[in-house]
Amino acid sequence: MLGSLPSFARLVSELGKLPGIGGKTATRLAFSLLRRPQEEVEALATALIEMKRNLSFCSRCFNLSESELCSVCSDSGRDETRVCVVQEPQDLMAIERSHGYKGCYHVLHGALSPLDGIGPEDLKIPQLLTRLKQEPVEEVVVATSFTVEGEATALYLARILKQAGIKVTRPAHGIPMGSDLEYIDSATVQLAIDSRREL
Amino acid sequence: MLGSLPSFARLVSELGKLPGIGGKTATRLAFSLLRRPQEEVEALATALIEMKRNLSFCSRCFNLSESELCSVCSDSGRDETRVCVVQEPQDLMAIERSHGYKGCYHVLHGALSPLDGIGPEDLKIPQLLTRLKQEPVEEVVVATSFTVEGEATALYLARILKQAGIKVTRPAHGIPMGSDLEYIDSATVQLAIDSRREL
Repeated sequence: MLGSLPSFARLVSELGKLPGIGGKTATRLAFSLLRRPQEEVEALATALIEMKRNLSFCSRCFNLSESELCSVCSDSGRDETRVCVVQEPQDLMAIERSHGYKGCYHVLHGALSPLDGIGPEDLKIPQLLTRLKQEPVEEVVVATSFTVEGEATALYLARILKQAGIKVTRPAHGIPMGSDLEYIDSATVQLAIDSRREL
Repeated sequence: MLGSLPSFARLVSELGKLPGIGGKTATRLAFSLLRRPQEEVEALATALIEMKRNLSFCSRCFNLSESELCSVCSDSGRDETRVCVVQEPQDLMAIERSHGYKGCYHVLHGALSPLDGIGPEDLKIPQLLTRLKQEPVEEVVVATSFTVEGEATALYLARILKQAGIKVTRPAHGIPMGSDLEYIDSATVQLAIDSRREL
């Protein structure tokens, strides 16, 4: 049936390349797009092309940016003595949403993973080291993910940054706000108890 | 954060208009598209525009088509004395996939729903009646959905088509192939027992 509808089949196939979208969802999305007004479909197509044309990375911290410097780096109110290292721009956005951090950032675009052949040169680690030599950074907050790769990256950075005399910190492990102890995995509970604070 | 990335925010907003795609999924898809090569993103944009430009409906049965007549209507090997009435092109595709039907189709593009103000004139029912006068149709298989609206549409069509001396049938209700009785809803089990056949 789709063989006689090449344009439709092509759209289904292109949509099916997106993550988490299989054949059935792609067909459902294509049918939904078919029923939309021409302008809406064109707006999506234009948004795709414009995003690819306008978006690049900040030349200083490698955050997403539509100009040479990202919105954080071009904000003069930021504390330049602190740099928070994250894996992806999404992580930076999550920290910004928390409004709990007023320093600068550095986006690695990945984490160390020797098994996948990803070493320090495949990430923005050399650029971080150059930056630390040129800027008055006193503390690096390593906010890589709490996964095997993220922890390995944090340990690697801690080792080389401490040698350079820079204070290295990591966000605290613990029980998320508003959660029920019953449903938290036991490794997290154990860490939270080990890192308990006096009230 | 997204305020400083208008192209990215616009793509997230356009993707979020798709059914079943909320803000978080839209952001995830936008990030995934950001990491793809330019050609892939352009291929998706082109597929969207081409689909809208090329696809329309068959002038005879209102199936999806990229030409005046759809692939079923332009197939001379089809039995012209039988017409299967379905709600949506998706339903037609499902029947074609079963390879169990060799007649023609008529796509209503919806079902009767007085509560939503959808009457016979809002569907392709007048076009069906005109067609039945001009073509040598002996049987109409009403394969609308087994929902309240679909059943209402089936009853409505049965009433007017029987008056016109056309045989009206409906696909059988029953237990789906390969299913476990335990997990089938009791209304279906009851119908399947009522419609039992001798072996």
